[in-house]
Amino acid sequence: MADKIKVSLLGSTGMVGQKMVKMLAKHPYLELVKVSASPSKIGKKYKDAVKWIEQGDIPEEVQDLPIVSTNYEDHKDVDVVLSALPNELAESIELELVKNGKIVVSNASPFRMDPDVPLINPEINWEHLELLKFQKERKGWKGILVKNPNCTAAIMSMPIKPLIEIATKSKIIITTLQAVSGAGYNGISFMAIEGNIIPYIKGEEDKIAKELTKLNGKLENNQIIPANLDSTVTSIRVPTRVGHMGVINIVTNERINIEEIKKTLKNFKSLPQQKNLPTAPKQPIIVRDEEDRPQPIIDVNAESGMAVTVGRIRHENNVLRLVVLGDNLVRGAAGITILTVEVMKELGYI
Amino acid sequence: MADKIKVSLLGSTGMVGQKMVKMLAKHPYLELVKVSASPSKIGKKYKDAVKWIEQGDIPEEVQDLPIVSTNYEDHKDVDVVLSALPNELAESIELELVKNGKIVVSNASPFRMDPDVPLINPEINWEHLELLKFQKERKGWKGILVKNPNCTAAIMSMPIKPLIEIATKSKIIITTLQAVSGAGYNGISFMAIEGNIIPYIKGEEDKIAKELTKLNGKLENNQIIPANLDSTVTSIRVPTRVGHMGVINIVTNERINIEEIKKTLKNFKSLPQQKNLPTAPKQPIIVRDEEDRPQPIIDVNAESGMAVTVGRIRHENNVLRLVVLGDNLVRGAAGITILTVEVMKELGYI
Amino acid sequence: MADKIKVSLLGSTGMVGQKMVKMLAKHPYLELVKVSASPSKIGKKYKDAVKWIEQGDIPEEVQDLPIVSTNYEDHKDVDVVLSALPNELAESIELELVKNGKIVVSNASPFRMDPDVPLINPEINWEHLELLKFQKERKGWKGILVKNPNCTAAIMSMPIKPLIEIATKSKIIITTLQAVSGAGYNGISFMAIEGNIIPYIKGEEDKIAKELTKLNGKLENNQIIPANLDSTVTSIRVPTRVGHMGVINIVTNERINIEEIKKTLKNFKSLPQQKNLPTAPKQPIIVRDEEDRPQPIIDVNAESGMAVTVGRIRHENNVLRLVVLGDNLVRGAAGITILTVEVMKELGYI
Amino acid sequence: MADKIKVSLLGSTGMVGQKMVKMLAKHPYLELVKVSASPSKIGKKYKDAVKWIEQGDIPEEVQDLPIVSTNYEDHKDVDVVLSALPNELAESIELELVKNGKIVVSNASPFRMDPDVPLINPEINWEHLELLKFQKERKGWKGILVKNPNCTAAIMSMPIKPLIEIATKSKIIITTLQAVSGAGYNGISFMAIEGNIIPYIKGEEDKIAKELTKLNGKLENNQIIPANLDSTVTSIRVPTRVGHMGVINIVTNERINIEEIKKTLKNFKSLPQQKNLPTAPKQPIIVRDEEDRPQPIIDVNAESGMAVTVGRIRHENNVLRLVVLGDNLVRGAAGITILTVEVMKELGYI
Repeated sequence: MADKIKVSLLGSTGMVGQKMVKMLAKHPYLELVKVSASPSKIGKKYKDAVKWIEQGDIPEEVQDLPIVSTNYEDHKDVDVVLSALPNELAESIELELVKNGKIVVSNASPFRMDPDVPLINPEINWEHLELLKFQKERKGWKGILVKNPNCTAAIMSMPIKPLIEIATKSKIIITTLQAVSGAGYNGISFMAIEGNIIPYIKGEEDKIAKELTKLNGKLENNQIIPANLDSTVTSIRVPTRVGHMGVINIVTNERINIEEIKKTLKNFKSLPQQKNLPTAPKQPIIVRDEEDRPQPIIDVNAESGMAVTVGRIRHENNVLRLVVLGDNLVRGAAGITILTVEVMKELGYI
Repeated sequence: MADKIKVSLLGSTGMVGQKMVKMLAKHPYLELVKVSASPSKIGKKYKDAVKWIEQGDIPEEVQDLPIVSTNYEDHKDVDVVLSALPNELAESIELELVKNGKIVVSNASPFRMDPDVPLINPEINWEHLELLKFQKERKGWKGILVKNPNCTAAIMSMPIKPLIEIATKSKIIITTLQAVSGAGYNGISFMAIEGNIIPYIKGEEDKIAKELTKLNGKLENNQIIPANLDSTVTSIRVPTRVGHMGVINIVTNERINIEEIKKTLKNFKSLPQQKNLPTAPKQPIIVRDEEDRPQPIIDVNAESGMAVTVGRIRHENNVLRLVVLGDNLVRGAAGITILTVEVMKELGYI
Repeated sequence: MADKIKVSLLGSTGMVGQKMVKMLAKHPYLELVKVSASPSKIGKKYKDAVKWIEQGDIPEEVQDLPIVSTNYEDHKDVDVVLSALPNELAESIELELVKNGKIVVSNASPFRMDPDVPLINPEINWEHLELLKFQKERKGWKGILVKNPNCTAAIMSMPIKPLIEIATKSKIIITTLQAVSGAGYNGISFMAIEGNIIPYIKGEEDKIAKELTKLNGKLENNQIIPANLDSTVTSIRVPTRVGHMGVINIVTNERINIEEIKKTLKNFKSLPQQKNLPTAPKQPIIVRDEEDRPQPIIDVNAESGMAVTVGRIRHENNVLRLVVLGDNLVRGAAGITILTVEVMKELGYI
Repeated sequence: MADKIKVSLLGSTGMVGQKMVKMLAKHPYLELVKVSASPSKIGKKYKDAVKWIEQGDIPEEVQDLPIVSTNYEDHKDVDVVLSALPNELAESIELELVKNGKIVVSNASPFRMDPDVPLINPEINWEHLELLKFQKERKGWKGILVKNPNCTAAIMSMPIKPLIEIATKSKIIITTLQAVSGAGYNGISFMAIEGNIIPYIKGEEDKIAKELTKLNGKLENNQIIPANLDSTVTSIRVPTRVGHMGVINIVTNERINIEEIKKTLKNFKSLPQQKNLPTAPKQPIIVRDEEDRPQPIIDVNAESGMAVTVGRIRHENNVLRLVVLGDNLVRGAAGITILTVEVMKELGYI
């Protein structure tokens, strides 16, 4: 085990944190050795600090790990720090760790749009990690900061990537229908959302539109040139537990061959697949032909939650429509972070 | 009571039927004198034939009405036949009644797109009733057939009407999020839709797009010229009980004054308001400025379910966006039918 | 309006508070003149301080009322203070008001089991208000404190009262199935309870068992002698919005005539009915013979939420079983408090 | 593979049928070779006849199996016929197969209380299989019929068995809270049960009480003497997907040591555990000490759905209370049937 990569985890008791704990427990070469949580939990055993909600028991090797702080001292001896911190806490904590020399791979929103910070959805833009060659110098950091996108942007970007030529020439109109888990375990009360839908998610519409341009951007002269993606997003909270869906309308009067589109999506592969990385889905985009798919309760776990499912593909009225679904906690959060670490190792950044 | 209008009701024990029974019980001049239901229920008292699901008890005067058939003989002595029949049964039943001379006002889909049959959402196109002057002759019917639109089309058409000039010059992209009651009380099982969303509703997307063109059409030379509304619709079933929502994106590069738009919507009034008809909402379109509205559990009952609520109005990226919500059982079905009868009386068609 | 009773309301922006605001708006002789809420809201207009969730708009006369504190000074000029405060805040606030001379009628749990404080469910034990003749002296208070029971105890006590002779000779085993609103609007997250049931509600089982003995107690020598009610309660949270249900099993080998029992329950009337008080249900206990009733979504609003509904009455195996349902926000909270004030006025305590 | 046991499956496309298909796909020595479904599906491939709702894809080896009828001819060459037929269809179909010589192990209700038919919950009463030595002669059958209990009885019987001495001396009062899947995939509409609870399940209360006496009966003189279990049951449908819960109140004035009770439950093992059968849970009864457990969304999958979870164990007021939860589709249906076959093989009945 000497050559395993030692990782610590910030925000380990939250919903995404628990998902990471579970995924890391089975990982071939990442070893979770430190778990961090909010100050009141420091010193407790993980099993006493967490309200475990994942199916099955807490992985044995994690149960008795003591909760540590987010301070650099507590993460000195790990190779990589993973962050599932809430957005509002992440900035200063992650910055301190990076300044002190840690490699931090994070799900939280601060720095996502920073031109010197790679925003990585591995299959889409692993090449952007090349920014890391310049990050220390440009930022004056001793460590490294890599970001993962907003959960919805992570999912929506998947089918847009293989269609990027059409997409960048078109107006794109997206409606997202997002599960309650996206707001955190205690984020929305039953009384507020049961039997209801709420056509508003604070900050979400802007994040999705902007992050899509960066994720699909091109690396030129050591800089990311954002893609020319003109997308308008409406985000709606719906009473589902897990799984964000998006209706993507690409307004285009080009001639579209639907079977071609399907084939392009199905066959989409990227570095994680070519290198057969442990957390990579074999087929990142699953295309369903049934008229009533994708559905969260049936499709969200496709490829252990790492694939997105696309259905209802149609070209009518000069609108190419896709309905996309992905697991916001896995593809959109825990899994994307772990896969990013795997890519970084593969490319020698770790 | 001699001068009340006597009505009978087809499909009286279904969800929309029950809603009509309740609305008619308080009506100033419509009197429900006959209730019809499926053959196995004929002869039973209404209270024994119905599985009543509306709040409160069955109106007293209806409780003991015997269920009658849908045959002409059983409706001979009423002034108007209202129909809340399922789409698949409606065509032949309604046709027989109309051929025999009855005035039928119906919610069911057959004949909605027939050029000689008015498709009425009263505030939008009451003028189309003028087609009735030609219907008997053109069709060879002794009676009269008037249709109400699909429940979602009824709701979506409301805010489009006052914006029709912009709308007809634009591409319109709509995502609808529709409540389970739209499929009937037993239409969708709990296991299929609880905690789930289903991105498909059979036939819905086409109906909405087409009916919007007819509803907004112009009467010229005694014919309806459909409006040039280029709308592309995606319909999604969501686990709410009542209330259809639509995200309407109008792609336009015109200069838009949002406050003007809001004022136009708020001030929209039509014949039902001018004549102060009993079932007419005082304000057909309610505009909400709160960023998280409309929501089904809060807004669906606005104006007793006869108003639609519009929120999240925005113009960005050349997209004018509205989020619309309406009561699919009232504005979309029971209420629109009763209001149509009121307009017909007002205009002398009854 | 000079002779209206002026009331103020503590906890006016919560779910029960809103319900009271709505009920008071239509009240013939109670006039809501002051609304209080948490310190951060003081000074704001009610309409700006509240997240209104009741159907319909905020009553006009309340919309612009400024939020006041809970201090005596802010309630000096009202006749009665109603309290919908959270249990954990109520004790000291209510005590200060009572010591300063106010009449406080409260829903919160502190003092409920105090021998000198009447715990009132009007139809059950309005006679207990006689304790007020001794309260000031015994407590050394200048004002008066009257309590209403726990919402579930309020509902369960209704059908037990007319059966009290059998009940006090029997072992009683109760399972309650309680709606999420009982925990407050933000009390339970969607992720915790949607599609789930939780067989535990902190403190509830004990409260119900104990309060039932006091509610059904007898006034002897100016004291409440608790009833000999041996009840064992299991409380389960279920994913419904409003309406607490209880399965009451009374283990008795007495001969039971079910029709007699039904008649006794149906005919139960008490002072509020005899005096025709404004908020009193005409029939406090509704008996349903249908085998699948009561159900929250159908029965919870019976008599505007002030009646309880009892069904599935059966005597088998020496167990008399009742299934009871009531509105936890109305019968169990807002309505019971207002009805208590009405009784107090009727009896001259106000 | 020559020595695998060949099984066919009746009702293979239903919810329980699908669960069996999935469980059998991984089975070490049971091989599913024939799948049967309703007449309209005969001849279709399984994958075209089923609306698959289990997570993951249909097992490859089953996808293309053609649907066969329920007639003997179609099951002639299998060793065992498993039945997941609906109760109302099962009697005649199963009887024909048994009369023709097949071994049928069935979940359906007919014949469950027949004195010559073993009603098996393997851990509880595997010894009752001895009835099979007399069944052919007594019944005049060429084959064998073995039944599994009602899903709720299967689950409730688990913790009662190790406490049978106390239980048979006591009055038992049970409230069950049952998931919607218990009524079949299309059994209950969303509109009927969402946000609602229904205090009635047709036939359920009687079945549970009676089957508990047979399951816990003793084999004497080649007959089952039912246990003297005096239980009174109230069954309530709740809006959960999977998992039946029961509140079991055992009225006893014996001295109870709660820690003893917990130990007895935890340590309960039976033949399936001793023989280490493939589908047997290692620990059939899991005891949780957390005050808010068991909960369906967390605990239902314990031991792949084959264990039941017991919590809130308390002895107060002479009432020993247990709250029990089990997977109605696995422990209560698909899994119990497969485990029964494993026991039958172990004991030489197959």
